[in-house]
Amino acid sequence: MSRTDFVFPVRIHYEDTDAGGVVYHANYPRYMARTRTECLRELGHELVKLEQDFIFAVRSVSIDFLKPVFLNDLLQVHVTVARKGKTSLDIRHEIYRENIIVCHADVNVAGHVASSFRPQAIPFEVG
Amino acid sequence: MSRTDFVFPVRIHYEDTDAGGVVYHANYPRYMARTRTECLRELGHELVKLEQDFIFAVRSVSIDFLKPVFLNDLLQVHVTVARKGKTSLDIRHEIYRENIIVCHADVNVAGHVASSFRPQAIPFEVG
Amino acid sequence: MSRTDFVFPVRIHYEDTDAGGVVYHANYPRYMARTRTECLRELGHELVKLEQDFIFAVRSVSIDFLKPVFLNDLLQVHVTVARKGKTSLDIRHEIYRENIIVCHADVNVAGHVASSFRPQAIPFEVG
Amino acid sequence: MSRTDFVFPVRIHYEDTDAGGVVYHANYPRYMARTRTECLRELGHELVKLEQDFIFAVRSVSIDFLKPVFLNDLLQVHVTVARKGKTSLDIRHEIYRENIIVCHADVNVAGHVASSFRPQAIPFEVG
Repeated sequence: MSRTDFVFPVRIHYEDTDAGGVVYHANYPRYMARTRTECLRELGHELVKLEQDFIFAVRSVSIDFLKPVFLNDLLQVHVTVARKGKTSLDIRHEIYRENIIVCHADVNVAGHVASSFRPQAIPFEVG
Repeated sequence: MSRTDFVFPVRIHYEDTDAGGVVYHANYPRYMARTRTECLRELGHELVKLEQDFIFAVRSVSIDFLKPVFLNDLLQVHVTVARKGKTSLDIRHEIYRENIIVCHADVNVAGHVASSFRPQAIPFEVG
Repeated sequence: MSRTDFVFPVRIHYEDTDAGGVVYHANYPRYMARTRTECLRELGHELVKLEQDFIFAVRSVSIDFLKPVFLNDLLQVHVTVARKGKTSLDIRHEIYRENIIVCHADVNVAGHVASSFRPQAIPFEVG
Repeated sequence: MSRTDFVFPVRIHYEDTDAGGVVYHANYPRYMARTRTECLRELGHELVKLEQDFIFAVRSVSIDFLKPVFLNDLLQVHVTVARKGKTSLDIRHEIYRENIIVCHADVNVAGHVASSFRPQAIPFEVG
């Protein structure tokens, strides 16, 4: 799949920044997770309902920080499903400020039984 | 009770600060919560064991921020039980950097059944 | 002033919750801070421009947590300026889920010189 | 370099967990950053002094989450300098709970001029 599946806006507030004057690096995975959740919601899958017996867990994250991001910046977080497996998904994120890419990342998420954390097939269509 | 029951050290890292160059105000309640947990641990009460049917929930927090706190500062977070009720505790926190107080707060925590959030008597001695 | 000046929506994601299954208490002041920033933006005051020589610092926060808030809940954060002083503002926040109030808070913010943290008159009209 | 350069303990509190009952994935880079800072402090380099004209910025992070981590767990975060360049370092982190590895990561950090974010040689010996 080559097109972007979904885009979600993130505005940078004080809580996102650090004393270096930029967004703290560990906050970027939060913006990506929000975007995946909102993408699922758009597809009709509310987390609370999934929760009853199914949960997505993040198995790996690989992020390149390309440009610093500042207080008040408005970001666009893109999400694309790069590979759909039976129990896991490879996801590609790209984050833009205006038309400049500031960050990209590859994330692997896998289906699990919420109570036992055992692997589980993803029980619905994604992307 | 007038003495401090327990003191816990908190070192300020980048994750704690914001673009104003100081500790982000919403992070102080985290340091207080860590200190209450470590105080309980000192008294022999591990959260995980409590969790099975009992949980403390914060019902109110009132904080005065007296001095700015900076990257790399080492804080001492004090906790004192000011009033012990059957189902709730009034707690007083004072935070010091060296011998200067930088923040104080009053926190009310109440016992709850973990699964239903219904009020519950505190099943052990505190302070 | 008795009406609400501004309302900002906050969706609860995983990052907002804790192992008790509810929103972690120290995250509420973040939603209030976002709402104050967005209210200022609505009034034409962008933080980045303010930053050059003026900063708001939070001097006190007093919060009552009335109802637990859960993953996926959609909150409405209200902000009202209760008192306007020359160098500080008393602000009232109320947070609703649908038509039920889940939290209210009083916050005092004061104008400061960004570089020195010295008090400074607020250089524009608010509310 | 094959040995671990430094180990730092991290106790898991409520603030670290999410409604899935485990540590929120975006919190792991925070534990790694704390550990790098404490390792530098051990080597005699205090961040505040570095700050005057030098800053480390994270350029990339690649994390594998191997096992879920729970409330109250005590982790040991290891840091090893895998490659020392003139302006950047490749760092390897491994996180253990008791003797089981729960997470590993590769992080690239680079020296920058604090005010301009321009690349800068690292002005001291590391590792």
